[in-house]
Amino acid sequence: MNKLFVIKIGGNVIDDEASLQLFLQRFAGIGGKKILVHGGGKIATKIGTQLGIEPNYVNGRRITDAATIDLVTMVYGGLLNKKVVAALQSLHCNAIGLTGADANIIPAVKRPVNEIDYGFVGDIVNAGLKIENVELFLANGLTPVVAPLTHDGNGQLLNTNADTIASVLAVALSPVYHVRLIYCFEKKGVLEDISDESSVIHFINKEKYRQLLAEKKLADGILPKIDNAFAAIDAGVKEVLIGYANDLQQNAGDDVKGTLFS
Amino acid sequence: MNKLFVIKIGGNVIDDEASLQLFLQRFAGIGGKKILVHGGGKIATKIGTQLGIEPNYVNGRRITDAATIDLVTMVYGGLLNKKVVAALQSLHCNAIGLTGADANIIPAVKRPVNEIDYGFVGDIVNAGLKIENVELFLANGLTPVVAPLTHDGNGQLLNTNADTIASVLAVALSPVYHVRLIYCFEKKGVLEDISDESSVIHFINKEKYRQLLAEKKLADGILPKIDNAFAAIDAGVKEVLIGYANDLQQNAGDDVKGTLFS
Repeated sequence: MNKLFVIKIGGNVIDDEASLQLFLQRFAGIGGKKILVHGGGKIATKIGTQLGIEPNYVNGRRITDAATIDLVTMVYGGLLNKKVVAALQSLHCNAIGLTGADANIIPAVKRPVNEIDYGFVGDIVNAGLKIENVELFLANGLTPVVAPLTHDGNGQLLNTNADTIASVLAVALSPVYHVRLIYCFEKKGVLEDISDESSVIHFINKEKYRQLLAEKKLADGILPKIDNAFAAIDAGVKEVLIGYANDLQQNAGDDVKGTLFS
Repeated sequence: MNKLFVIKIGGNVIDDEASLQLFLQRFAGIGGKKILVHGGGKIATKIGTQLGIEPNYVNGRRITDAATIDLVTMVYGGLLNKKVVAALQSLHCNAIGLTGADANIIPAVKRPVNEIDYGFVGDIVNAGLKIENVELFLANGLTPVVAPLTHDGNGQLLNTNADTIASVLAVALSPVYHVRLIYCFEKKGVLEDISDESSVIHFINKEKYRQLLAEKKLADGILPKIDNAFAAIDAGVKEVLIGYANDLQQNAGDDVKGTLFS
Protein backbone atom coordinates (compact mmCIF):
# COMPACT_ATOMS: atom_id res chain seq x y z
CA MET A 1 0.00 0.00 0.00
CA ASN A 2 1.35 3.43 -0.92
CA LYS A 3 1.77 6.02 1.76
CA LEU A 4 -0.37 9.15 1.77
CA PHE A 5 0.02 12.16 4.01
CA VAL A 6 -3.06 14.24 4.78
CA ILE A 7 -1.77 17.39 6.43
CA LYS A 8 -3.84 20.11 8.06
CA ILE A 9 -2.66 23.64 8.79
CA GLY A 10 -4.58 26.35 10.56
CA GLY A 11 -4.44 30.07 11.12
CA ASN A 12 -1.17 30.04 13.06
CA VAL A 13 0.67 28.90 9.92
CA ILE A 14 -1.45 30.77 7.39
CA ASP A 15 -1.48 34.18 9.02
CA ASP A 16 2.26 34.70 8.83
CA GLU A 17 3.62 34.90 5.27
CA ALA A 18 7.14 33.81 6.28
CA SER A 19 5.89 30.83 8.34
CA LEU A 20 3.65 29.79 5.49
CA GLN A 21 6.48 29.91 2.94
CA LEU A 22 8.72 27.83 5.20
CA PHE A 23 5.93 25.37 5.83
CA LEU A 24 5.20 25.03 2.11
CA GLN A 25 8.87 24.32 1.40
CA ARG A 26 8.76 21.51 3.95
CA PHE A 27 5.45 20.27 2.57
CA ALA A 28 6.75 20.28 -1.02
CA GLY A 29 9.81 18.36 0.19
CA ILE A 30 7.79 15.36 1.34
CA GLY A 31 8.21 12.58 -1.19
CA GLY A 32 5.14 10.76 -2.43
CA LYS A 33 1.43 11.42 -2.25
CA LYS A 34 0.06 14.19 -0.09
CA ILE A 35 -2.97 16.37 0.50
CA LEU A 36 -2.96 19.76 2.21
CA VAL A 37 -6.07 20.96 4.04
CA HIS A 38 -6.00 24.55 5.19
CA GLY A 39 -8.14 26.47 7.60
CA GLY A 40 -8.94 30.13 7.60
CA GLY A 41 -6.93 32.76 9.37
CA LYS A 42 -7.19 36.31 10.55
CA ILE A 43 -7.12 37.68 7.01
CA ALA A 44 -10.81 36.79 6.52
CA THR A 45 -11.78 38.76 9.63
CA LYS A 46 -9.61 41.68 8.51
CA ILE A 47 -11.10 41.78 5.00
CA GLY A 48 -14.56 41.24 6.47
CA THR A 49 -14.16 44.24 8.76
CA GLN A 50 -13.08 46.37 5.78
CA LEU A 51 -16.22 45.20 3.95
CA GLY A 52 -18.41 45.96 6.95
CA ILE A 53 -19.04 42.27 7.69
CA GLU A 54 -18.83 41.98 11.45
CA PRO A 55 -18.32 38.60 13.10
CA ASN A 56 -21.69 37.37 14.30
CA TYR A 57 -21.84 35.28 17.48
CA VAL A 58 -24.75 33.49 19.19
CA ASN A 59 -24.01 31.94 22.61
CA GLY A 60 -20.31 32.34 21.92
CA ARG A 61 -20.47 30.40 18.62
CA ARG A 62 -19.52 32.06 15.37
CA ILE A 63 -22.41 32.17 12.89
CA THR A 64 -21.87 31.96 9.14
CA ASP A 65 -24.44 34.38 7.74
CA ALA A 66 -24.94 35.07 4.02
CA ALA A 67 -22.32 37.84 3.91
CA THR A 68 -19.83 35.65 5.79
CA ILE A 69 -20.15 32.63 3.50
CA ASP A 70 -19.41 34.92 0.53
CA LEU A 71 -16.47 36.37 2.46
CA VAL A 72 -14.93 33.00 3.30
CA THR A 73 -15.59 31.72 -0.22
CA MET A 74 -13.52 34.66 -1.48
CA VAL A 75 -10.80 34.49 1.10
CA TYR A 76 -10.45 30.76 1.82
CA GLY A 77 -11.48 29.45 -1.60
CA GLY A 78 -9.83 32.25 -3.59
CA LEU A 79 -7.09 34.29 -1.98
CA LEU A 80 -5.55 31.76 0.43
CA ASN A 81 -6.15 28.64 -1.61
CA LYS A 82 -4.78 30.05 -4.87
CA LYS A 83 -1.78 31.71 -3.20
CA VAL A 84 -0.87 28.37 -1.63
CA VAL A 85 -1.33 26.62 -4.98
CA ALA A 86 0.84 29.16 -6.83
CA ALA A 87 3.52 28.96 -4.10
CA LEU A 88 3.55 25.13 -4.30
CA GLN A 89 3.83 25.29 -8.08
CA SER A 90 6.97 27.43 -7.65
CA LEU A 91 8.33 24.60 -5.46
CA HIS A 92 7.61 22.02 -8.20
CA CYS A 93 4.71 20.53 -6.32
CA ASN A 94 1.83 20.18 -8.81
CA ALA A 95 -0.93 21.48 -6.55
CA ILE A 96 -4.61 21.72 -7.42
CA GLY A 97 -6.85 23.91 -5.29
CA LEU A 98 -10.24 22.49 -4.36
CA THR A 99 -13.30 23.18 -2.31
CA GLY A 100 -15.79 20.43 -1.53
CA ALA A 101 -17.88 21.65 -4.48
CA ASP A 102 -15.07 21.07 -7.00
CA ALA A 103 -15.48 17.68 -8.65
CA ASN A 104 -18.18 17.24 -5.98
CA ILE A 105 -15.55 15.83 -3.64
CA ILE A 106 -17.23 16.80 -0.34
CA PRO A 107 -21.01 17.14 -0.28
CA ALA A 108 -22.58 18.33 2.95
CA VAL A 109 -25.87 19.34 4.50
CA LYS A 110 -26.53 22.70 6.09
CA ARG A 111 -26.37 22.04 9.81
CA PRO A 112 -29.90 21.53 11.15
CA VAL A 113 -31.15 24.30 13.42
CA ASN A 114 -31.64 23.09 16.97
CA GLU A 115 -30.80 25.54 19.73
CA ILE A 116 -28.49 27.54 17.51
CA ASP A 117 -28.77 28.40 13.83
CA TYR A 118 -25.15 28.23 12.72
CA GLY A 119 -26.09 29.58 9.31
CA PHE A 120 -24.19 28.34 6.26
CA VAL A 121 -22.22 25.64 8.04
CA GLY A 122 -21.94 22.25 6.40
CA ASP A 123 -21.90 18.83 8.03
CA ILE A 124 -20.22 16.41 5.65
CA VAL A 125 -22.29 13.64 4.07
CA ASN A 126 -19.73 10.84 4.25
CA ALA A 127 -21.74 8.55 1.97
CA GLY A 128 -21.71 11.19 -0.76
CA LEU A 129 -17.97 11.81 -0.95
CA LYS A 130 -16.63 11.56 -4.50
CA ILE A 131 -13.38 10.18 -3.19
CA GLU A 132 -12.65 8.57 -6.57
CA ASN A 133 -11.96 12.06 -7.90
CA VAL A 134 -9.42 12.72 -5.15
CA GLU A 135 -7.83 9.35 -6.00
CA LEU A 136 -7.77 10.37 -9.66
CA PHE A 137 -5.81 13.52 -8.82
CA LEU A 138 -3.38 11.67 -6.55
CA ALA A 139 -2.84 8.88 -9.08
CA ASN A 140 -1.95 11.49 -11.69
CA GLY A 141 0.70 13.31 -9.69
CA LEU A 142 -1.50 16.14 -8.46
CA THR A 143 -1.48 17.39 -4.87
CA PRO A 144 -4.92 18.50 -3.67
CA VAL A 145 -4.99 21.70 -1.61
CA VAL A 146 -8.38 21.77 0.08
CA ALA A 147 -10.11 24.88 1.44
CA PRO A 148 -12.55 24.52 4.37
CA LEU A 149 -15.65 24.77 2.20
CA THR A 150 -18.24 22.20 1.20
CA HIS A 151 -21.56 22.47 -0.68
CA ASP A 152 -25.11 21.27 -0.29
CA GLY A 153 -25.71 20.03 -3.83
CA ASN A 154 -28.31 22.75 -4.34
CA GLY A 155 -25.84 25.46 -5.26
CA GLN A 156 -24.99 26.66 -1.76
CA LEU A 157 -21.42 26.71 -0.49
CA LEU A 158 -21.00 25.89 3.19
CA ASN A 159 -18.34 26.60 5.81
CA THR A 160 -16.83 23.39 7.22
CA ASN A 161 -14.15 22.87 9.85
CA ALA A 162 -10.77 22.07 8.30
CA ASP A 163 -9.87 19.48 10.97
CA THR A 164 -13.04 17.59 10.07
CA ILE A 165 -12.32 17.76 6.34
CA ALA A 166 -8.80 16.43 6.91
CA SER A 167 -10.11 13.57 9.01
CA VAL A 168 -12.90 12.65 6.60
CA LEU A 169 -10.51 12.60 3.63
CA ALA A 170 -7.97 10.55 5.58
CA VAL A 171 -10.62 7.98 6.54
CA ALA A 172 -12.09 7.79 3.04
CA LEU A 173 -8.66 7.24 1.46
CA SER A 174 -7.54 4.62 3.99
CA PRO A 175 -8.81 1.63 2.00
CA VAL A 176 -6.46 2.67 -0.82
CA TYR A 177 -3.51 4.25 0.98
CA HIS A 178 -1.53 3.80 4.18
CA VAL A 179 -2.55 7.21 5.54
CA ARG A 180 -0.73 9.34 8.09
CA LEU A 181 -2.99 12.21 9.11
CA ILE A 182 -0.91 15.10 10.44
CA TYR A 183 -2.40 17.98 12.41
CA CYS A 184 -0.05 20.95 12.63
CA PHE A 185 -0.45 22.23 16.15
CA GLU A 186 0.79 25.14 18.23
CA LYS A 187 2.70 22.74 20.49
CA LYS A 188 5.33 20.15 19.62
CA GLY A 189 2.95 17.33 20.45
CA VAL A 190 1.20 15.84 23.47
CA LEU A 191 3.27 16.82 26.51
CA GLU A 192 3.67 14.87 29.73
CA ASP A 193 4.30 18.19 31.42
CA ILE A 194 2.35 21.00 29.77
CA SER A 195 4.97 23.58 30.82
CA ASP A 196 7.85 21.59 29.30
CA GLU A 197 8.01 21.46 25.49
CA SER A 198 10.73 18.80 25.75
CA SER A 199 8.33 16.35 27.40
CA VAL A 200 6.67 15.24 24.16
CA ILE A 201 5.22 11.72 24.27
CA HIS A 202 6.23 10.39 20.86
CA PHE A 203 4.01 7.33 20.56
CA ILE A 204 0.57 6.73 21.98
CA ASN A 205 -1.55 3.68 21.32
CA LYS A 206 -4.76 2.88 23.14
CA GLU A 207 -3.00 0.96 25.91
CA LYS A 208 -0.61 3.83 26.51
CA TYR A 209 -3.53 6.25 26.45
CA ARG A 210 -5.37 4.29 29.17
CA GLN A 211 -2.18 4.29 31.22
CA LEU A 212 -1.67 8.06 30.79
CA LEU A 213 -5.29 8.69 31.75
CA ALA A 214 -4.94 6.48 34.83
CA GLU A 215 -1.80 8.39 35.82
CA LYS A 216 -3.67 11.69 35.20
CA LYS A 217 -0.71 12.90 33.15
CA LEU A 218 -2.67 14.62 30.37
CA ALA A 219 -4.02 18.16 30.37
CA ASP A 220 -7.79 18.36 29.88
CA GLY A 221 -7.44 20.55 26.77
CA ILE A 222 -5.65 17.83 24.81
CA LEU A 223 -8.19 15.06 25.47
CA PRO A 224 -10.62 15.96 22.66
CA LYS A 225 -7.72 16.02 20.19
CA ILE A 226 -6.60 12.59 21.34
CA ASP A 227 -10.14 11.26 21.12
CA ASN A 228 -10.39 12.61 17.56
CA ALA A 229 -7.11 10.95 16.69
CA PHE A 230 -8.32 7.55 17.93
CA ALA A 231 -11.68 8.05 16.22
CA ALA A 232 -9.80 8.42 12.91
CA ILE A 233 -7.73 5.32 13.69
CA ASP A 234 -10.85 3.34 14.59
CA ALA A 235 -12.25 4.40 11.21
CA GLY A 236 -9.25 2.99 9.33
CA VAL A 237 -6.54 5.66 9.34
CA LYS A 238 -3.20 3.97 10.07
CA GLU A 239 -1.50 6.82 11.90
CA VAL A 240 -2.38 10.24 13.24
CA LEU A 241 0.26 12.75 14.26
CA ILE A 242 0.00 15.99 16.21
CA GLY A 243 3.00 18.30 16.06
CA TYR A 244 4.67 21.57 15.10
CA ALA A 245 4.40 22.79 11.53
CA ASN A 246 8.16 23.46 11.75
CA ASP A 247 8.80 19.78 12.44
CA LEU A 248 6.89 18.56 9.40
CA GLN A 249 9.91 16.95 7.77
CA GLN A 250 10.60 14.72 10.80
CA ASN A 251 6.91 14.19 11.49
CA ALA A 252 6.45 12.80 8.00
CA GLY A 253 9.28 10.33 8.65
CA ASP A 254 10.04 7.56 11.12
CA ASP A 255 11.81 9.60 13.77
CA VAL A 256 8.95 11.87 14.74
CA LYS A 257 9.30 14.97 16.90
CA GLY A 258 5.55 15.16 17.59
CA THR A 259 3.10 12.59 18.92
CA LEU A 260 2.18 9.66 16.73
CA PHE A 261 -1.04 7.80 17.44
CA SER A 262 -1.60 4.34 16.07
CA MET B 1 -13.12 12.75 -32.81
CA ASN B 2 -15.27 13.72 -29.84
CA LYS B 3 -16.82 17.15 -29.74
CA LEU B 4 -15.72 19.67 -27.14
CA PHE B 5 -17.31 23.03 -26.43
CA VAL B 6 -15.11 25.78 -24.98
CA ILE B 7 -17.50 28.52 -23.90
CA LYS B 8 -16.59 31.98 -22.67
CA ILE B 9 -18.86 34.29 -20.70
CA GLY B 10 -18.09 37.81 -19.60
CA GLY B 11 -19.41 40.42 -17.22
CA ASN B 12 -22.77 40.84 -18.99
CA VAL B 13 -23.72 37.29 -18.01
CA ILE B 14 -21.91 37.18 -14.67
CA ASP B 15 -23.15 40.45 -13.21
CA ASP B 16 -26.80 39.50 -13.21
CA GLU B 17 -27.66 36.58 -10.92
CA ALA B 18 -30.80 35.61 -12.87
CA SER B 19 -29.01 35.71 -16.26
CA LEU B 20 -26.18 33.66 -14.84
CA GLN B 21 -28.53 30.99 -13.48
CA LEU B 22 -30.34 30.74 -16.80
CA PHE B 23 -27.06 30.56 -18.66
CA LEU B 24 -25.75 27.82 -16.35
CA GLN B 25 -28.92 25.77 -16.93
CA ARG B 26 -28.33 26.02 -20.66
CA PHE B 27 -24.64 25.23 -20.22
CA ALA B 28 -25.37 22.19 -18.04
CA GLY B 29 -27.85 21.01 -20.67
CA ILE B 30 -25.21 20.67 -23.38
CA GLY B 31 -24.44 17.00 -23.83
CA GLY B 32 -20.83 15.89 -23.91
CA LYS B 33 -17.55 17.53 -23.06
CA LYS B 34 -17.38 21.21 -22.25
CA ILE B 35 -15.24 23.87 -20.60
CA LEU B 36 -16.50 27.17 -19.21
CA VAL B 37 -14.17 30.16 -19.10
CA HIS B 38 -15.47 33.16 -17.20
CA GLY B 39 -14.34 36.75 -17.07
CA GLY B 40 -14.71 39.18 -14.24
CA GLY B 41 -17.64 41.48 -13.75
CA LYS B 42 -18.60 44.56 -11.85
CA ILE B 43 -18.57 42.73 -8.51
CA ALA B 44 -14.76 42.95 -8.36
CA THR B 45 -14.87 46.71 -8.81
CA LYS B 46 -17.61 46.99 -6.20
CA ILE B 47 -15.77 44.91 -3.62
CA GLY B 48 -12.54 46.71 -4.50
CA THR B 49 -14.13 50.08 -3.85
CA GLN B 50 -15.37 48.84 -0.47
CA LEU B 51 -11.81 47.70 0.31
CA GLY B 52 -10.38 51.05 -0.80
CA ILE B 53 -8.79 49.56 -3.94
CA GLU B 54 -9.43 52.10 -6.66
CA PRO B 55 -9.13 51.14 -10.32
CA ASN B 56 -5.76 52.30 -11.55
CA TYR B 57 -5.45 53.41 -15.18
CA VAL B 58 -2.41 54.48 -17.23
CA ASN B 59 -3.13 55.85 -20.72
CA GLY B 60 -6.64 54.46 -20.48
CA ARG B 61 -5.44 50.92 -19.72
CA ARG B 62 -6.38 49.23 -16.46
CA ILE B 63 -3.33 48.34 -14.36
CA THR B 64 -3.25 45.27 -12.12
CA ASP B 65 -1.34 46.46 -9.06
CA ALA B 66 -0.56 44.26 -6.03
CA ALA B 67 -3.84 45.07 -4.27
CA THR B 68 -5.78 44.40 -7.47
CA ILE B 69 -4.28 40.97 -8.16
CA ASP B 70 -5.24 39.94 -4.61
CA LEU B 71 -8.72 41.37 -5.22
CA VAL B 72 -9.28 39.50 -8.48
CA THR B 73 -7.80 36.31 -7.01
CA MET B 74 -10.45 36.54 -4.29
CA VAL B 75 -13.33 37.53 -6.49
CA TYR B 76 -12.65 35.72 -9.77
CA GLY B 77 -10.79 32.69 -8.36
CA GLY B 78 -12.93 32.41 -5.20
CA LEU B 79 -16.34 34.03 -5.13
CA LEU B 80 -17.38 33.83 -8.80
CA ASN B 81 -15.60 30.61 -9.69
CA LYS B 82 -16.87 28.65 -6.68
CA LYS B 83 -20.42 29.99 -6.97
CA VAL B 84 -20.51 28.86 -10.60
CA VAL B 85 -19.10 25.46 -9.64
CA ALA B 86 -21.64 24.98 -6.83
CA ALA B 87 -24.49 26.07 -9.15
CA LEU B 88 -23.35 23.63 -11.86
CA GLN B 89 -23.15 20.83 -9.29
CA SER B 90 -26.79 21.50 -8.44
CA LEU B 91 -27.53 21.02 -12.15
CA HIS B 92 -25.73 17.64 -12.16
CA CYS B 93 -22.78 19.02 -14.09
CA ASN B 94 -19.63 17.82 -12.32
CA ALA B 95 -17.72 21.08 -12.46
CA ILE B 96 -14.19 21.70 -11.21
CA GLY B 97 -13.02 25.27 -10.67
CA LEU B 98 -9.53 26.09 -11.87
CA THR B 99 -7.12 28.95 -12.29
CA GLY B 100 -4.06 28.62 -14.49
CA ALA B 101 -2.04 27.79 -11.37
CA ASP B 102 -4.16 24.74 -10.53
CA ALA B 103 -2.55 21.59 -11.90
CA ASN B 104 -0.24 24.12 -13.61
CA ILE B 105 -2.62 24.21 -16.55
CA ILE B 106 -1.79 27.74 -17.76
CA PRO B 107 1.67 29.13 -17.03
CA ALA B 108 2.35 32.71 -18.05
CA VAL B 109 4.96 35.44 -17.88
CA LYS B 110 4.34 38.82 -16.33
CA ARG B 111 3.86 41.15 -19.28
CA PRO B 112 7.17 42.90 -20.06
CA VAL B 113 7.21 46.62 -19.33
CA ASN B 114 7.52 48.67 -22.49
CA GLU B 115 5.63 51.93 -22.61
CA ILE B 116 3.15 50.80 -19.98
CA ASP B 117 3.68 48.67 -16.89
CA TYR B 118 0.45 46.67 -16.78
CA GLY B 119 1.43 45.23 -13.41
CA PHE B 120 0.43 41.67 -12.59
CA VAL B 121 -0.87 40.76 -16.03
CA GLY B 122 0.10 37.41 -17.51
CA ASP B 123 0.88 36.56 -21.12
CA ILE B 124 0.32 32.84 -21.57
CA VAL B 125 3.33 30.62 -22.30
CA ASN B 126 1.74 28.31 -24.85
CA ALA B 127 4.61 25.84 -24.78
CA GLY B 128 4.19 25.40 -21.04
CA LEU B 129 0.49 24.52 -20.97
CA LYS B 130 -0.21 21.32 -19.02
CA ILE B 131 -3.05 20.51 -21.34
CA GLU B 132 -2.78 16.81 -20.40
CA ASN B 133 -4.30 17.72 -17.03
CA VAL B 134 -7.27 19.39 -18.71
CA GLU B 135 -7.65 16.27 -20.87
CA LEU B 136 -7.51 14.14 -17.71
CA PHE B 137 -10.41 16.09 -16.20
CA LEU B 138 -12.47 15.93 -19.40
CA ALA B 139 -11.80 12.22 -19.88
CA ASN B 140 -13.06 11.57 -16.35
CA GLY B 141 -16.37 13.38 -16.69
CA LEU B 142 -15.32 16.64 -15.08
CA THR B 143 -16.21 20.04 -16.53
CA PRO B 144 -13.45 22.63 -16.01
CA VAL B 145 -14.62 26.11 -14.99
CA VAL B 146 -11.67 28.40 -15.58
CA ALA B 147 -11.15 31.80 -13.92
CA PRO B 148 -9.16 34.49 -15.79
CA LEU B 149 -6.00 33.94 -13.75
CA THR B 150 -2.65 32.43 -14.64
CA HIS B 151 0.65 32.19 -12.74
CA ASP B 152 4.33 32.84 -13.39
CA GLY B 153 5.75 29.63 -11.91
CA ASN B 154 7.45 31.65 -9.20
CA GLY B 155 4.44 31.87 -6.93
CA GLN B 156 2.80 34.94 -8.46
CA LEU B 157 -0.76 34.84 -9.75
CA LEU B 158 -1.44 36.95 -12.83
CA ASN B 159 -4.51 38.53 -14.39
CA THR B 160 -5.18 37.19 -17.90
CA ASN B 161 -7.91 38.02 -20.39
CA ALA B 162 -10.66 35.38 -20.42
CA ASP B 163 -11.09 35.54 -24.23
CA THR B 164 -7.42 34.69 -24.59
CA ILE B 165 -7.63 31.81 -22.11
CA ALA B 166 -10.63 30.38 -23.96
CA SER B 167 -8.85 30.62 -27.30
CA VAL B 168 -5.59 29.11 -26.00
CA LEU B 169 -7.43 26.16 -24.41
CA ALA B 170 -9.48 25.62 -27.57
CA VAL B 171 -6.36 25.57 -29.73
CA ALA B 172 -4.43 23.29 -27.38
CA LEU B 173 -7.28 20.77 -27.22
CA SER B 174 -7.92 20.73 -30.97
CA PRO B 175 -5.54 17.84 -31.71
CA VAL B 176 -7.69 15.66 -29.41
CA TYR B 177 -11.19 17.08 -29.83
CA HIS B 178 -13.38 18.59 -32.52
CA VAL B 179 -13.61 21.96 -30.76
CA ARG B 180 -16.31 24.58 -31.10
CA LEU B 181 -15.17 27.75 -29.32
CA ILE B 182 -18.19 29.85 -28.35
CA TYR B 183 -17.92 33.47 -27.31
CA CYS B 184 -21.04 34.74 -25.58
CA PHE B 185 -21.56 38.22 -26.87
CA GLU B 186 -23.90 41.15 -26.23
CA LYS B 187 -25.30 40.79 -29.78
CA LYS B 188 -26.88 37.81 -31.50
CA GLY B 189 -23.93 37.44 -33.80
CA VAL B 190 -22.26 39.30 -36.65
CA LEU B 191 -24.91 41.51 -38.21
CA GLU B 192 -25.16 42.59 -41.83
CA ASP B 193 -26.98 45.66 -40.56
CA ILE B 194 -25.76 46.71 -37.13
CA SER B 195 -29.13 48.27 -36.28
CA ASP B 196 -31.04 45.08 -37.13
CA GLU B 197 -30.63 42.11 -34.75
CA SER B 198 -32.45 39.90 -37.26
CA SER B 199 -29.68 40.37 -39.83
CA VAL B 200 -27.32 37.80 -38.30
CA ILE B 201 -24.93 36.21 -40.77
CA HIS B 202 -25.00 32.57 -39.64
CA PHE B 203 -21.96 31.17 -41.43
CA ILE B 204 -18.73 32.89 -42.32
CA ASN B 205 -15.72 31.21 -43.85
CA LYS B 206 -12.71 33.04 -45.23
CA GLU B 207 -14.19 33.40 -48.70
CA LYS B 208 -17.41 34.85 -47.29
CA TYR B 209 -15.34 37.15 -45.05
CA ARG B 210 -13.41 38.53 -48.04
CA GLN B 211 -16.70 39.08 -49.85
CA LEU B 212 -18.26 40.89 -46.84
CA LEU B 213 -15.15 43.07 -46.51
CA ALA B 214 -15.27 43.93 -50.21
CA GLU B 215 -18.92 44.86 -49.88
CA LYS B 216 -18.07 46.97 -46.78
CA LYS B 217 -20.94 45.28 -44.93
CA LEU B 218 -19.19 44.84 -41.58
CA ALA B 219 -18.97 47.37 -38.75
CA ASP B 220 -15.40 48.25 -37.78
CA GLY B 221 -15.95 47.15 -34.16
CA ILE B 222 -16.55 43.54 -35.13
CA LEU B 223 -13.43 43.12 -37.27
CA PRO B 224 -10.99 42.32 -34.42
CA LYS B 225 -13.40 39.64 -33.14
CA ILE B 226 -13.60 38.10 -36.59
CA ASP B 227 -9.83 38.21 -36.96
CA ASN B 228 -9.48 36.46 -33.58
CA ALA B 229 -11.98 33.82 -34.69
CA PHE B 230 -10.00 33.06 -37.84
CA ALA B 231 -6.73 33.10 -35.89
CA ALA B 232 -8.16 30.31 -33.70
CA ILE B 233 -9.29 28.40 -36.80
CA ASP B 234 -5.89 28.81 -38.43
CA ALA B 235 -4.40 27.37 -35.23
CA GLY B 236 -6.56 24.23 -35.46
CA VAL B 237 -9.91 25.03 -33.85
CA LYS B 238 -12.66 23.54 -36.03
CA GLU B 239 -15.40 26.12 -35.35
CA VAL B 240 -15.74 29.44 -33.59
CA LEU B 241 -19.14 30.90 -32.75
CA ILE B 242 -20.13 34.37 -31.61
CA GLY B 243 -23.63 34.77 -30.21
CA TYR B 244 -26.05 35.52 -27.39
CA ALA B 245 -25.66 33.70 -24.09
CA ASN B 246 -29.43 33.12 -24.26
CA ASP B 247 -29.04 31.25 -27.54
CA LEU B 248 -26.45 28.83 -26.17
CA GLN B 249 -28.59 25.75 -26.71
CA GLN B 250 -29.01 26.43 -30.43
CA ASN B 251 -25.47 27.74 -30.79
CA ALA B 252 -24.12 24.45 -29.46
CA GLY B 253 -26.16 22.61 -32.09
CA ASP B 254 -26.39 22.54 -35.87
CA ASP B 255 -29.06 25.19 -36.35
CA VAL B 256 -27.16 28.13 -34.91
CA LYS B 257 -28.70 31.49 -34.09
CA GLY B 258 -25.33 33.23 -33.90
CA THR B 259 -22.43 33.41 -36.33
CA LEU B 260 -20.39 30.30 -36.93
CA PHE B 261 -16.88 30.67 -38.34
CA SER B 262 -15.13 27.74 -39.92
